[in-house]
Amino acid sequence: MATEELIVRKMMYENDAFSQWLGIEFISIEPGKVELKMQIREEMTNGFKIAHGGIAFSLADSALAFSSNTHGIQSVTIETTTSFIKPLKEGEWVTAKATEIQLSGKFGRYLIEIFNDSGNLTAVFYGTVFRTGKPWIKS
Amino acid sequence: MATEELIVRKMMYENDAFSQWLGIEFISIEPGKVELKMQIREEMTNGFKIAHGGIAFSLADSALAFSSNTHGIQSVTIETTTSFIKPLKEGEWVTAKATEIQLSGKFGRYLIEIFNDSGNLTAVFYGTVFRTGKPWIKS
Amino acid sequence: MATEELIVRKMMYENDAFSQWLGIEFISIEPGKVELKMQIREEMTNGFKIAHGGIAFSLADSALAFSSNTHGIQSVTIETTTSFIKPLKEGEWVTAKATEIQLSGKFGRYLIEIFNDSGNLTAVFYGTVFRTGKPWIKS
Amino acid sequence: MATEELIVRKMMYENDAFSQWLGIEFISIEPGKVELKMQIREEMTNGFKIAHGGIAFSLADSALAFSSNTHGIQSVTIETTTSFIKPLKEGEWVTAKATEIQLSGKFGRYLIEIFNDSGNLTAVFYGTVFRTGKPWIKS
Repeated sequence: MATEELIVRKMMYENDAFSQWLGIEFISIEPGKVELKMQIREEMTNGFKIAHGGIAFSLADSALAFSSNTHGIQSVTIETTTSFIKPLKEGEWVTAKATEIQLSGKFGRYLIEIFNDSGNLTAVFYGTVFRTGKPWIKS
Repeated sequence: MATEELIVRKMMYENDAFSQWLGIEFISIEPGKVELKMQIREEMTNGFKIAHGGIAFSLADSALAFSSNTHGIQSVTIETTTSFIKPLKEGEWVTAKATEIQLSGKFGRYLIEIFNDSGNLTAVFYGTVFRTGKPWIKS
Repeated sequence: MATEELIVRKMMYENDAFSQWLGIEFISIEPGKVELKMQIREEMTNGFKIAHGGIAFSLADSALAFSSNTHGIQSVTIETTTSFIKPLKEGEWVTAKATEIQLSGKFGRYLIEIFNDSGNLTAVFYGTVFRTGKPWIKS
Repeated sequence: MATEELIVRKMMYENDAFSQWLGIEFISIEPGKVELKMQIREEMTNGFKIAHGGIAFSLADSALAFSSNTHGIQSVTIETTTSFIKPLKEGEWVTAKATEIQLSGKFGRYLIEIFNDSGNLTAVFYGTVFRTGKPWIKS
């Protein structure tokens, strides 16, 4: 198992109760980027009968955490910006694609795009992590 | 029941499955601002054994939705920025205080501060809504 | 002259005193995206002897305005997020590359990356415009 | 002269060519917060004949830099979010009021509100600084 798979699947996801509640599944895990998917359930909707904004955000924030931690250094979200473009409905499958925009010693920036079933962009998330310096795997 | 209470409690919250799953309770509802609270449960935590970033965001996004819709015009979140300052732990009670920064015909901006049990600021959320023009209550 | 060139060069840039003060030059103008460059002058620096944050922001905001208005509908900036990654020094040439992330009837979202002389990413700007519906050129 | 005055006026502003070009004047300087003003000149306007977005941003970014450095530790802007609410016209005096939202060892967050002549809110800026640990004044 590649190091990034070990960190993301075993050390992070298996202990991440909320990502599991969301039903997040992995499409791919590579250094600096992941692709995730999940399905919108009734209990994730709000008073407008669409997914609560917190759902797309949570998927994106998991994608940010997984992507930035693939490099082996514990990294925590400090700032995020999210645009809501299209509503997500119950039953829809949603995909999050993360791209690493920048990485330096202390910080990393990632763009995460959220797509619906039909491949339409429904939300855009831009996040900054602080790299604590603490390694995931002690050598 | 005041109009803002009717909209937020009856028309929004009672149909908002995810805010209910979060266990959100109302401290106060006034025109342009609400104060909410909820408790962090084990299923809301992530691999670092602290609340997933999506939880503080979701509480804040509900506070944004409730605050901006008190004016009687259906308003939807378009942009949000969130800073994560301190982790939230299982069992902690969390409070969200919304303040209306700006309101015009088309847009509204709100600052939402998230506090922990001890009254420490743990996250800051700044959100913009688009006011659709559609009234909640037809006259 | 293509419509996007006419709008950006003649109708916008020629009346844009501040973009001229910055010394902004066009590398390319296409529907939904532009590439711009400018040089950092002494009067653009701050007390740390690097370009004031407002300089990279202003270049990016011009790139946002030019990119979003290429479609022929007057569009105004409503929300922006900017990350500052590396300082820019006096004498450096700076390039802004805009990408259209999303475009709908009312809103458009753009990512603008700012590079220094050596091709390093120095700032990231993410901006949302509101499309007023008013055409640049009356038919 | 109080330490915060010494840092902001002498060590920062006197070496800050761009803040001087903007014509920034101090209304007040206190630990963690400043109030600034400036006047919109013709060379600061864009193709819509209103102040370029970079002008309100630059004023706010100076207010962020001054406010966060009052504590004596060199602090640099890493992330900013800006909402544009109302246009600013040539000749108008503009005021920036900074408030410290949060301060910890590594980071600080500030809200900066930009008002026009008539006291109307015209832009909102939310910024995060990284505190480098380097003191302004060696003891």
